[in-house]
Amino acid sequence: MKRRTSPSLSVFLASVLAPALVFGADVASSPWGPDDEIGRLNMITAESRKAALENLNPTSAYDLSVEYFIGMPSWQAAGDPHFQMWMTHTPKGTLVDDPLSVGDEMNAHVSYTGSAFTMYAHTGTHIDALNHFGLNGKIWNHFSAEEHLGDRGWKRAGVEKLPPIIARGVLLDIPAAKGLDELAPGYRITRDDIKYTLTVQGTDIAPGDVVLIRTGRMRQYSDGNRFMANAPGLGMEAAHFLAAEKQAMSLGADNLSFEAFPSEDSDNYVPVHTYLLAQQGVTIMELVNLEQLAEDRIYEFAFIGTPLKIRGGDAAPLRPIAIPYGSVQ
Amino acid sequence: MKRRTSPSLSVFLASVLAPALVFGADVASSPWGPDDEIGRLNMITAESRKAALENLNPTSAYDLSVEYFIGMPSWQAAGDPHFQMWMTHTPKGTLVDDPLSVGDEMNAHVSYTGSAFTMYAHTGTHIDALNHFGLNGKIWNHFSAEEHLGDRGWKRAGVEKLPPIIARGVLLDIPAAKGLDELAPGYRITRDDIKYTLTVQGTDIAPGDVVLIRTGRMRQYSDGNRFMANAPGLGMEAAHFLAAEKQAMSLGADNLSFEAFPSEDSDNYVPVHTYLLAQQGVTIMELVNLEQLAEDRIYEFAFIGTPLKIRGGDAAPLRPIAIPYGSVQ
Amino acid sequence: MKRRTSPSLSVFLASVLAPALVFGADVASSPWGPDDEIGRLNMITAESRKAALENLNPTSAYDLSVEYFIGMPSWQAAGDPHFQMWMTHTPKGTLVDDPLSVGDEMNAHVSYTGSAFTMYAHTGTHIDALNHFGLNGKIWNHFSAEEHLGDRGWKRAGVEKLPPIIARGVLLDIPAAKGLDELAPGYRITRDDIKYTLTVQGTDIAPGDVVLIRTGRMRQYSDGNRFMANAPGLGMEAAHFLAAEKQAMSLGADNLSFEAFPSEDSDNYVPVHTYLLAQQGVTIMELVNLEQLAEDRIYEFAFIGTPLKIRGGDAAPLRPIAIPYGSVQ
Amino acid sequence: MKRRTSPSLSVFLASVLAPALVFGADVASSPWGPDDEIGRLNMITAESRKAALENLNPTSAYDLSVEYFIGMPSWQAAGDPHFQMWMTHTPKGTLVDDPLSVGDEMNAHVSYTGSAFTMYAHTGTHIDALNHFGLNGKIWNHFSAEEHLGDRGWKRAGVEKLPPIIARGVLLDIPAAKGLDELAPGYRITRDDIKYTLTVQGTDIAPGDVVLIRTGRMRQYSDGNRFMANAPGLGMEAAHFLAAEKQAMSLGADNLSFEAFPSEDSDNYVPVHTYLLAQQGVTIMELVNLEQLAEDRIYEFAFIGTPLKIRGGDAAPLRPIAIPYGSVQ
Repeated sequence: MKRRTSPSLSVFLASVLAPALVFGADVASSPWGPDDEIGRLNMITAESRKAALENLNPTSAYDLSVEYFIGMPSWQAAGDPHFQMWMTHTPKGTLVDDPLSVGDEMNAHVSYTGSAFTMYAHTGTHIDALNHFGLNGKIWNHFSAEEHLGDRGWKRAGVEKLPPIIARGVLLDIPAAKGLDELAPGYRITRDDIKYTLTVQGTDIAPGDVVLIRTGRMRQYSDGNRFMANAPGLGMEAAHFLAAEKQAMSLGADNLSFEAFPSEDSDNYVPVHTYLLAQQGVTIMELVNLEQLAEDRIYEFAFIGTPLKIRGGDAAPLRPIAIPYGSVQ
Repeated sequence: MKRRTSPSLSVFLASVLAPALVFGADVASSPWGPDDEIGRLNMITAESRKAALENLNPTSAYDLSVEYFIGMPSWQAAGDPHFQMWMTHTPKGTLVDDPLSVGDEMNAHVSYTGSAFTMYAHTGTHIDALNHFGLNGKIWNHFSAEEHLGDRGWKRAGVEKLPPIIARGVLLDIPAAKGLDELAPGYRITRDDIKYTLTVQGTDIAPGDVVLIRTGRMRQYSDGNRFMANAPGLGMEAAHFLAAEKQAMSLGADNLSFEAFPSEDSDNYVPVHTYLLAQQGVTIMELVNLEQLAEDRIYEFAFIGTPLKIRGGDAAPLRPIAIPYGSVQ
Repeated sequence: MKRRTSPSLSVFLASVLAPALVFGADVASSPWGPDDEIGRLNMITAESRKAALENLNPTSAYDLSVEYFIGMPSWQAAGDPHFQMWMTHTPKGTLVDDPLSVGDEMNAHVSYTGSAFTMYAHTGTHIDALNHFGLNGKIWNHFSAEEHLGDRGWKRAGVEKLPPIIARGVLLDIPAAKGLDELAPGYRITRDDIKYTLTVQGTDIAPGDVVLIRTGRMRQYSDGNRFMANAPGLGMEAAHFLAAEKQAMSLGADNLSFEAFPSEDSDNYVPVHTYLLAQQGVTIMELVNLEQLAEDRIYEFAFIGTPLKIRGGDAAPLRPIAIPYGSVQ
Repeated sequence: MKRRTSPSLSVFLASVLAPALVFGADVASSPWGPDDEIGRLNMITAESRKAALENLNPTSAYDLSVEYFIGMPSWQAAGDPHFQMWMTHTPKGTLVDDPLSVGDEMNAHVSYTGSAFTMYAHTGTHIDALNHFGLNGKIWNHFSAEEHLGDRGWKRAGVEKLPPIIARGVLLDIPAAKGLDELAPGYRITRDDIKYTLTVQGTDIAPGDVVLIRTGRMRQYSDGNRFMANAPGLGMEAAHFLAAEKQAMSLGADNLSFEAFPSEDSDNYVPVHTYLLAQQGVTIMELVNLEQLAEDRIYEFAFIGTPLKIRGGDAAPLRPIAIPYGSVQ
């Protein structure tokens, strides 16, 4: 896998490394100009896609998403809607209701099933757009809520602006490197954990990579309360290492809130989110199911993720896949 | 592109061609056995993925999906929910509500945006699972609503069972072949239209392909009423040609209801749906945006589509992409 | 029926009559002080309730509400959610799902039905709270959206603050007085129409009354499109007569939008709403079903209406009733 | 207060007393005939309303309902939707979105607030219709789910059929009679508790009364977990006493689930519900706020409750009021 650092990226690196060291101050301007709404996803180019999709071994196509179901774990501390799905048409119900006025015989013959669903946008495997968290009333690239946020979402940096994400993906199986099944409750992943894991795995991170961090918390997914309680997550130094030093394009993890709580910064309850989204232009994926990749020790792969284009949204569900590299036997 | 017909597929072809000619009688048994819930998507194998992803030219990655927004076109004849999205958290609202009890200073500093959404599962670019339409109370492979349909969807053939769809894709630009911008309102695509389009395009359909049919109706998408009214769509003979003779794995189109109305079959208001889903095991994609592919005359491509795994659902949104083949210049 | 004008009301009358003549300028201060959130509903007192409930003849209790159902008429011009209801539990579905883990035998014996619903708060028979429409960012009594409106409604003047409305009610059957079945589409009710109707009916309006205006539009309720299209409604002069001169406590009508469109005021698309809500402190009821009262020529009655207490809401459904006065034969 | 037992009621009493003693067997036929969908609410007559509304002392009008708000206690064991409300229009959001295409100046002048909400029908103060629980696939009066339950509710016994409930109300303050602030967690109210309370209070129950049972659990309402956990409730003997012997028309309580769990009947997890709804035709009100009535020791009153008419629904919210009897000082 060749590194894809281009001249323009070097300029970019220089421009973001400095402000990135000052956590919490204010949102950053985009190196891609005042109209930029997608941040690092600008690193996706014809060239980068070409590199990411070369030499595939699609013997497996790993499904990195979780299912949506009533009762699934979701973040409820701020009162957001749970996932719900319901039937709007059933074969039997259609016979009773005849919603299309086609009569009993037709309804008995044509068996219609329809359903609907609703969710907080941050439910299940999803990606946070750059408008999800900002600082001081503004988001990435200084777009303000005052000017750009209506009752139907943001006119700027909405999740519908995100392109299909096609990139080299890297799995960091932190617990495996540390000889654990999963990280301890509340454990905060350090910069050293990441460097150590890269060494153990024999992998490196190239600018533009999608980096997926396994905490092992997904092992508790079937028990919503255990899954949610005091999850391990990424620390600020580690986030800085990945985003600013390694120039990862997008980050993901297998837990629900990405970072660990309580926060390291007494002035900011989600400093890793605001740092990545508002200061580094780095989108965040949560509830990414990395168990099978980890079991098969697939640490590098083509990542393909296509978030639903919900206009103005601050997050969207997606069902990403990972396709390994290498020659097929 | 090599054809991927394997010995087991020949058996399959023989088994489904016969019943397929009898429209409307009853649902079919799956050639993949009594437990099969995904029908033709069983044609996806390591081998087929390998073939589909070879020789990619990802200079472009075509986004085949539409946006979700309040007021978007959707099917309302049977009273299903419109798409809605709303803000659950805004930077200013958080200051007033303090939903996390973190106080004014924190809420002024950390600018939180959250949103939720709801939709009928057949809204926007989506795929119908095999349980969407059945016959006489049963769906594909004889699963009955009586036994398998609860208040939270189907225990069998739910859309969450569908694998990531990675396959060769073929675009049939019917209006272009006929020298039109788009097909006339209500026009029903014939078997000859498809054969003629294949000839004009110089393409063929191999077993296991995803076949995407352009009617041109997507050109009216910005005007919901025009988009919905009396759309052109696939006829039954044409469906039979694609599904039974050509052994397409999954079909899609750029309109909302796939087939044209009123139906050709006085006993069945959606005969193309029931034929494909319940008798052929062929999933159907709707509202697939084919305009850019058509403009660029890309008729063959790698199709990658990953429906959200909504447990028990009869459809799910997806944002499919198309990656052309060929050498990069 | 005695008039209930008390000394404090005279002060009130004087205070509101003047500003009321200046339409559109700005919101008004409440005569009930800077903390007032319910406006005229302060006129409800032990005394007023006593007067309203004396001498009842409850041979009939008129139900003034409409049903909620999928497909019911609702205001959609600004994209608000339609009414939806759906089953969350059915006897058969429970057998398949076993959501309470009680087993087949129990589920077959105990037949559970549950349902859920959703709606825009201004759907069906409902009351607008004083926060529904304001002027220049403020509502009645100068509460500002900036300070008091969160993501979960208003901290001030929410519909949950409205008391049970028990008052003398007066029906104004405008079309009957004019010898019509219903008012013409788009007809704007004048001050003279109201005075004439009072004369024809032999009724008067006392301060503190709930005044319900029949346009006759409810006759079209079964056809959603006809019901919604270009409805007749109240004009500004007539609103001023009822609110400022007659000191009605709350107003209602049988149409969906209360006033007629397009508006009389080129600077304000809902001048009757802003006048009543933000300048007079008068709540507005819409979709009040007056057909039976009109048919029975019941022009005075005890009005009892109890809006659901939706915290922070700007409207709430209610099912008001009217109980005639007079001695039972 | 005169008893209102009429000759027809005696027939009724005889007809229901016998089957009532056999708990759990099957649903009952209505003494009001095979088309009856409202059961005991048929006891409401012109006469009964007259009696209930005589001699009112409306110095107070007690509001017996709770507020709806995000995070409110609700029953979640079977995965039903929580209450949610959200803003669809705000003064600032309207400026950004311009949903009515009226332009900035207009949107800055006319300050529009709109909201929507959703809930499980059994949320907050509500009434269960007779279709909420049945036995063996049928509900009160032998209406079957097979024949009458569609995807949009029941064609029979839907909550929209319930009339405005105007009746004499009786409060049973069980904990007060027993010298307690509230009943112990899980306490099951007995027949003797009720008889003793009636004696202590000096009240009696007449056929056709609405009987409201205070457990005291409402004192915990502000803490959702405490409110929900192991609530005290009505036992089967006590239910029988009220429904069959005393001929109460409708029952209510201040807890969420009316009866206590686990159930007394190993074959039925909600025997009090099925007994009252399906065998006695007695509607049930839950989350009725009785604290103020209890504090003021108002044990008899006019009860006025008007459930929202949700077509086909199995429950509906209502905001009932209680008006004391007696001469005004």
